Amino acid sequence: MIPDTLTQGQYDTVYNFLSLVIASQLFTAVFLTIALPRILPRYRQAITVAIVVCAIAAYHYFRIFDSFKEAFVSDSVGGAGVYTQAVGASFNEGYRYVDWLLTVPLLLLELIAVLALARKVQTGLIIRLLPAAALMIILGYPGEISGDNTVRGIFGLLSTIPFAYILYVLFVQLGKSLNKQPVSVRRTLSQLRFLLLLSWGVYPIAYILPMLDISGADAWVGKQIGYSIADILAKAVYALIIFYVARMKSFDDDPDFAARENSPEDAAMFVRR
Amino acid sequence: MIPDTLTQGQYDTVYNFLSLVIASQLFTAVFLTIALPRILPRYRQAITVAIVVCAIAAYHYFRIFDSFKEAFVSDSVGGAGVYTQAVGASFNEGYRYVDWLLTVPLLLLELIAVLALARKVQTGLIIRLLPAAALMIILGYPGEISGDNTVRGIFGLLSTIPFAYILYVLFVQLGKSLNKQPVSVRRTLSQLRFLLLLSWGVYPIAYILPMLDISGADAWVGKQIGYSIADILAKAVYALIIFYVARMKSFDDDPDFAARENSPEDAAMFVRR
Repeated sequence: MIPDTLTQGQYDTVYNFLSLVIASQLFTAVFLTIALPRILPRYRQAITVAIVVCAIAAYHYFRIFDSFKEAFVSDSVGGAGVYTQAVGASFNEGYRYVDWLLTVPLLLLELIAVLALARKVQTGLIIRLLPAAALMIILGYPGEISGDNTVRGIFGLLSTIPFAYILYVLFVQLGKSLNKQPVSVRRTLSQLRFLLLLSWGVYPIAYILPMLDISGADAWVGKQIGYSIADILAKAVYALIIFYVARMKSFDDDPDFAARENSPEDAAMFVRR
Repeated sequence: MIPDTLTQGQYDTVYNFLSLVIASQLFTAVFLTIALPRILPRYRQAITVAIVVCAIAAYHYFRIFDSFKEAFVSDSVGGAGVYTQAVGASFNEGYRYVDWLLTVPLLLLELIAVLALARKVQTGLIIRLLPAAALMIILGYPGEISGDNTVRGIFGLLSTIPFAYILYVLFVQLGKSLNKQPVSVRRTLSQLRFLLLLSWGVYPIAYILPMLDISGADAWVGKQIGYSIADILAKAVYALIIFYVARMKSFDDDPDFAARENSPEDAAMFVRR
């Protein structure tokens, strides 16, 4: 439910956060596209997926931004007024679900791809994680669009089952593969799973809000800010960390490549090894 | 606060300056993207960041431009009239803060990356400068949106602390690293810090204006012109200087590359060294 009215400050805050997400996703995609030759070919598939995820998110936030602008009109001249719901337009939150349906499985694919595991292990992880991720999003949707708290609760609970399974695979099964990663990135990869957990955790919190009868304009603005920050962390920041991992692994795999890519001082160090 | 009315001349001036910023940022980004192979791989990360900064600025100026166009309507047909504030729209100055939040830390990253220091020194500078830059922008925002001069003063002062720290790191701590740079760029790099100081200095001046009771249409137009020029200097011109440094350092690192990139006459000189 969107609020009946927003103050100028509330309107501007949502407006600026939605625009911040567009800029973050779009220019992370641009950065990674230009920076793609700065890693070895074997890691470029992972970063290509990361670029696509950020681009998909930017696209959906363009839609959400336009939908938001059309859903409210100001009653005043030159701002400092009150915004009310516009006639003939509504704010479409469904875009978020379409976005997640596409990006959440791809986020897991990014992580698996950058590990550059043996093909058999990699396929096993993909088969387990990607359908679970899609199922998690699909099961949440009937609850999100329902006004009934019981329906919301049931589908929220169902959606938690694949979520718990994903966490199990990431923290228990993937843990073994991490020990085979170069020392330079082991810590980063381990922490990356917590970034996933932290940023994904925002979605169930926003999902539960209406069940706790927390509503009104402030709660709605808070939810939009929460989703925005979570999407920046889960996609753009996540992608940049994956890129950092790919770059460190590239240096580790190929000292000549590392020598060309680093300062003359460090370059000598890489070649000498 | 935006002025109640603008003359045709004032309106056109702001319009043209905003458009000038878009063109400067966008085509600096285009130029650098095409020119990226004209420097050695180890400097391309710095220039990639410069491209992203200019692209982010271009995006926000597109938004600022649209917001400005929507915020004012002319009372006459065919121009030469008076512009008044439009109903149901406001000029969103918040975009500037979102832009700075993303670009100011990246501007410092550009400078650090082009120095191509030893990894340890580089990481040390990043950890010190980037959070300080983000903090400087975040602390300025509550003051900017407040109508109260005391609140404005307090947050302006708080924001000055990280700014002073950045200057200290740039002029005192970084000074030592500059002596290790090739002679051909030492002077340019040293002066680049003054360009930063000069262009960044415009923002606090614009911030203080409302506290001095300097308001009205002329002051507002002046502020928009000041921001526009500062953004062109701090991002586009700055990026081109960083590119020049990267190119000079590339020639210095690799005489064969220098020979290929220079006139046949000069080429002989580079190889001979």
